[in-house]
Amino acid sequence: MQDLYKLTAAEVASLLRSNNITVEEYARSLISRVKARDATVKAWAYFDEDLVLDEARKLDQVPQARRGPLHGIAIGVKDVIYTKDMPTQMGSTIYKDDAPKLDAAPVITLRNAGALIFGNPSSFTMLLKLIPAIGKTTTTEFASTTEGPATTNPHDSGRTPGGSSSGSGAAVADLQVPLALGTQTGGSMIRPASFNGVYALKPTWNSVSREGLKVYSLLLDTLGFFARSVEDLEMLADVLEIKDDEPSPETFNIKGAKIAFCKTEIWDQAGRGTQDALARGLELLSLHGAKLTELTLPPEFDDFPKSNKRLLFGEGRTTFLSEYNANGDKLDPFLIGVAENDEKITRKQYVEAIDRIATLRPKFDAIASEYDAVLTPSIPDEAPVGLKSTGSAAFNAMWTALHVPVANVPGFKGSNDMPIGLSLVVSRYHDRHLLQVAKEVGKIFSEEGGWKNTLVT
Amino acid sequence: MQDLYKLTAAEVASLLRSNNITVEEYARSLISRVKARDATVKAWAYFDEDLVLDEARKLDQVPQARRGPLHGIAIGVKDVIYTKDMPTQMGSTIYKDDAPKLDAAPVITLRNAGALIFGNPSSFTMLLKLIPAIGKTTTTEFASTTEGPATTNPHDSGRTPGGSSSGSGAAVADLQVPLALGTQTGGSMIRPASFNGVYALKPTWNSVSREGLKVYSLLLDTLGFFARSVEDLEMLADVLEIKDDEPSPETFNIKGAKIAFCKTEIWDQAGRGTQDALARGLELLSLHGAKLTELTLPPEFDDFPKSNKRLLFGEGRTTFLSEYNANGDKLDPFLIGVAENDEKITRKQYVEAIDRIATLRPKFDAIASEYDAVLTPSIPDEAPVGLKSTGSAAFNAMWTALHVPVANVPGFKGSNDMPIGLSLVVSRYHDRHLLQVAKEVGKIFSEEGGWKNTLVT
Repeated sequence: MQDLYKLTAAEVASLLRSNNITVEEYARSLISRVKARDATVKAWAYFDEDLVLDEARKLDQVPQARRGPLHGIAIGVKDVIYTKDMPTQMGSTIYKDDAPKLDAAPVITLRNAGALIFGNPSSFTMLLKLIPAIGKTTTTEFASTTEGPATTNPHDSGRTPGGSSSGSGAAVADLQVPLALGTQTGGSMIRPASFNGVYALKPTWNSVSREGLKVYSLLLDTLGFFARSVEDLEMLADVLEIKDDEPSPETFNIKGAKIAFCKTEIWDQAGRGTQDALARGLELLSLHGAKLTELTLPPEFDDFPKSNKRLLFGEGRTTFLSEYNANGDKLDPFLIGVAENDEKITRKQYVEAIDRIATLRPKFDAIASEYDAVLTPSIPDEAPVGLKSTGSAAFNAMWTALHVPVANVPGFKGSNDMPIGLSLVVSRYHDRHLLQVAKEVGKIFSEEGGWKNTLVT
Repeated sequence: MQDLYKLTAAEVASLLRSNNITVEEYARSLISRVKARDATVKAWAYFDEDLVLDEARKLDQVPQARRGPLHGIAIGVKDVIYTKDMPTQMGSTIYKDDAPKLDAAPVITLRNAGALIFGNPSSFTMLLKLIPAIGKTTTTEFASTTEGPATTNPHDSGRTPGGSSSGSGAAVADLQVPLALGTQTGGSMIRPASFNGVYALKPTWNSVSREGLKVYSLLLDTLGFFARSVEDLEMLADVLEIKDDEPSPETFNIKGAKIAFCKTEIWDQAGRGTQDALARGLELLSLHGAKLTELTLPPEFDDFPKSNKRLLFGEGRTTFLSEYNANGDKLDPFLIGVAENDEKITRKQYVEAIDRIATLRPKFDAIASEYDAVLTPSIPDEAPVGLKSTGSAAFNAMWTALHVPVANVPGFKGSNDMPIGLSLVVSRYHDRHLLQVAKEVGKIFSEEGGWKNTLVT
């Protein structure tokens, strides 16, 4: 039983349901993995072994009939998502000893799924307060800078795990936890997922409540999650009630599927690793019977980077005013620049950017609806050397601002054998369809894409 | 000195600056007013006399040279805005004994303005934690229902003060505090301001950070404030750094000003009181030399109520999922209906509503830019009898969704001598210009509009 930490959430849930393992046994396995690896990977901003074991033992007392769908499943929570029982420091010294004390809305929902008794108060009410969360994962400062925390890429400790959801990506990849929550304003989930070789879903904007998440941008911030399998992403999507507008068919076949690929206007930023990954990915999809179409977005999408920058910094100025005024001496110079509007973005330009991007959302939805999914780069290339910079979100920012769901699918590798993933994108509120596509595409990419994950063997 | 509570914030600030009064003296005057009136008005969800006096005495220790612009000024804070030192119960039993413990971003900014020492840590650092907040004002449940708290209208305790910012509107009108923060998703500030006969500014959406405010709708929720004078609104607008895209001229004259009036598509919901107020308001503006134009919005604005409802309930479904799952038995039936999507709004309809309203924002901005301001109803009629319903937001919801700034200007009365205000509306990020217009229009309406405020005499 010492290798329970290697299992996916779905596998653990099955063993727990059949009484083959206890939550405490599972927790001890994860704790031993964390202890063995934390000095190298440094994925945790907060990890309290005693708290985890205490909660695990309480969860073991809940009879099977009263257990929720995530009973006993461990989840890492990015440290910009508030938790009542663990500090939320947001990668900032400002909140080091003064963390908010409340549960974010998705945390409330997940706690509830750990031992669910809705509308039926009982002696187990106490257990409603349990959360299947194992700790808080590291983030760049306020999930808003690209300056990395101390976290390393589990596949090469000399390289960044990406950011801002650095710890969530690294901890899931490193088998320290099967699931982790993250947030994305530009590329803060898809980038670390790709760098670390795991799956991630950034759902449709506002399909999951952002109550209790540190704000960077009202119109961009999105909660999502990391896992080592699409089935595990689906477990969280179920509990958080992410649903499509119309349920998609039960099965999805690559054979005959209409897949578009979009190199985007910034394809010149793609390095050799991503160029090869996209070429190999398309070759594999074609071999498996998909119908491929190259998608070039209409010219009105060309100035997206400019509009997006104006939107992001326009919102950032409002967001960081309070910290700038009250704690400016503890703020990253980049965020001081945002608060001081170094980019000289006028309010008129900010409003125009809001309006312009709003007109492009239904246009992209209409385009994406022609296909089962759009395949596009997740990152410029494999994770760069060094921990200072968490890398570029250039290939992610447009999809985030379009509010469309994006899944990272791993399977490829760069010239240093580091993982490279590709993004699948669909129109808004087709997240569950996206996961179906990602499941089938993921099987092909993981088996034939060329990257071998040495951590799981 | 026993009547300090009657003063505006600007008047109190002046007396404090000239050392004519102490913060403690001012606080004692407010406390005596609260004590005399609270049994009737019930505006406070939390009011701790000892905490207020303790903070007042600390503020008195700060030398003049180190005092911020709001030094010693008391502010009521709507009980959906988080404060670290006072519970935030959100009008819900769920948070009665389990309130979030953090400061909302605007609260951080206001604290800082109470004793400002930016980037210059000193022995007064301790004082940075002070807030010029006197307590938490009542709200309807999660600022999302129309079922009133126990708060009464200070002009007639048998009538509603409006909502959801019930306590903020009532406390400012009743001279218990000169300034109060509120929030608006539909008409939660402009309605109570009108019912209670005070000024309110609902600024441009996202011009003030919403970090640490309970969420109802990401695209609608807006923080704003109540006062008994436009100068006092300007004091808060200064500290919260609400700025126009281009600074407007220093002075504004009604003579020659271009004022549009918009009865809106729902004018048939206006009762006699509001009909008379608009007619009298236009007559006064005309007498003072304004050029009046009737504004009929283009037909594409006609289905705004439908789109707005789909937007609001689409967002509400996401918002209330966690409370519904975890604490459904303590939730208002209306909010259960929102979580269960009683209105049967599909995700496609929600997304279409987002997109449709987004196209109307720049169109309204262009229309509004032709005028100095647009005059329009704040409420259907004077505050109705009874406390159960806080009244209708019908005349406010469109402006909130258009993200434009709105000011309520009091001055008129209904058939029972209850106050009636009118709204002034301008295009996005012309908030300061709006306040200049409201100041001049407010002088005319208060002197000649016909309502006599018996509380201030």
